Amino acid sequence: MPLHQKPTGKLISFEGSEGSGKSTQISLLAAHLQKTGKDVVSTREPGGTEIGEQIRNIIVHNSKGDEMCAETELLLFAAARAQLVREVIAPALLAGKYVLSDRFLDSSTVYQGIARKLAADPVAQINRFAVGNVMPDVTVVIDVPTEVSLTRLKQRTTDLPDRMERENIDFYNHVREGYLLLAKNMPERVILVDGTRTPAQVAQTIWEHVQVRLG
Amino acid sequence: MPLHQKPTGKLISFEGSEGSGKSTQISLLAAHLQKTGKDVVSTREPGGTEIGEQIRNIIVHNSKGDEMCAETELLLFAAARAQLVREVIAPALLAGKYVLSDRFLDSSTVYQGIARKLAADPVAQINRFAVGNVMPDVTVVIDVPTEVSLTRLKQRTTDLPDRMERENIDFYNHVREGYLLLAKNMPERVILVDGTRTPAQVAQTIWEHVQVRLG
Repeated sequence: MPLHQKPTGKLISFEGSEGSGKSTQISLLAAHLQKTGKDVVSTREPGGTEIGEQIRNIIVHNSKGDEMCAETELLLFAAARAQLVREVIAPALLAGKYVLSDRFLDSSTVYQGIARKLAADPVAQINRFAVGNVMPDVTVVIDVPTEVSLTRLKQRTTDLPDRMERENIDFYNHVREGYLLLAKNMPERVILVDGTRTPAQVAQTIWEHVQVRLG
Repeated sequence: MPLHQKPTGKLISFEGSEGSGKSTQISLLAAHLQKTGKDVVSTREPGGTEIGEQIRNIIVHNSKGDEMCAETELLLFAAARAQLVREVIAPALLAGKYVLSDRFLDSSTVYQGIARKLAADPVAQINRFAVGNVMPDVTVVIDVPTEVSLTRLKQRTTDLPDRMERENIDFYNHVREGYLLLAKNMPERVILVDGTRTPAQVAQTIWEHVQVRLG
């Protein structure tokens, strides 16, 4: 187990489709927390460590895209997560810091489990193995309709759409439904936020929720 | 499940410490099988696919060695294995071929489970998830004393010993004990072979066993 004592820090994970505005909201929340004197560590998945970024390269830039099987994808995300938890997140939480993670274990539940239809039990077992006892204190799910998500993705000026961005609209609909289900099933941990409003409005809602949940 | 029908091919995995002579014996068995008219596919772990070789690079050439946590190591091996099973092994077995694999799921049981002391249950769960229903028909464990294994390793002329070869003697003793335990617990699948004899003698023993087991 990566945490041998109860940490004084807090882990806040951000979830949602691509284009939902997670990175923007992480920056805004980080700034807000820092203004109140908190020590903040921002990280992302897959990645966030040297090994994790190497794993990210395999997942994201895998040249042929559809040749990676769903099982391998799940295990690679879990491998990057296991390293991130033990190398970055757990030490930061023990040092009393606020950790803001762009995706965490719920991404595997939703993307590889629900959207790619892997069986729920092994996905949950592998998630548990990867994170040990490090669970988010709060998870912010930013919800946007699939059309909004895809329009925002197309506006990004990358030369080559990466692997995750080449999926079809059905896939993204499953992802969205998966997150809505997660928010419904775990209200004690998950905050569902409407991501179609302005970034400032979304940030304000998140800030209010975080204050209530974490005091 | 990668196999939807009973395959006509056979999967033979080779296990043992580094320096036990697995690669040599795989070549010799492959030649022997080919002489009897069998179609043979040889593969290795981690690796054996484009994605798997990228994963192998992370595991083997990880520059700082000890910074990779055991959980990440297990998940990376499983990720490479999941891809290998679905892309190479299962199709070959369905096509009636003999697949000879340099390491397979028992390596995770022994190296990450027994030698690195990860809990047995998650290791077994992750192994099952990675291989689906593709299990070896026969597993050849080549046993050599740890001192022999280390002496052979030192004779290899690589510029930089890779990650797995920098481990200490205690680690290799645990690996050896793990394989002996495996052979004791699963006599119906595992053949234990004394690897201190000449390659030709070891090959002859393996050939006799394979004939008996696979007809």
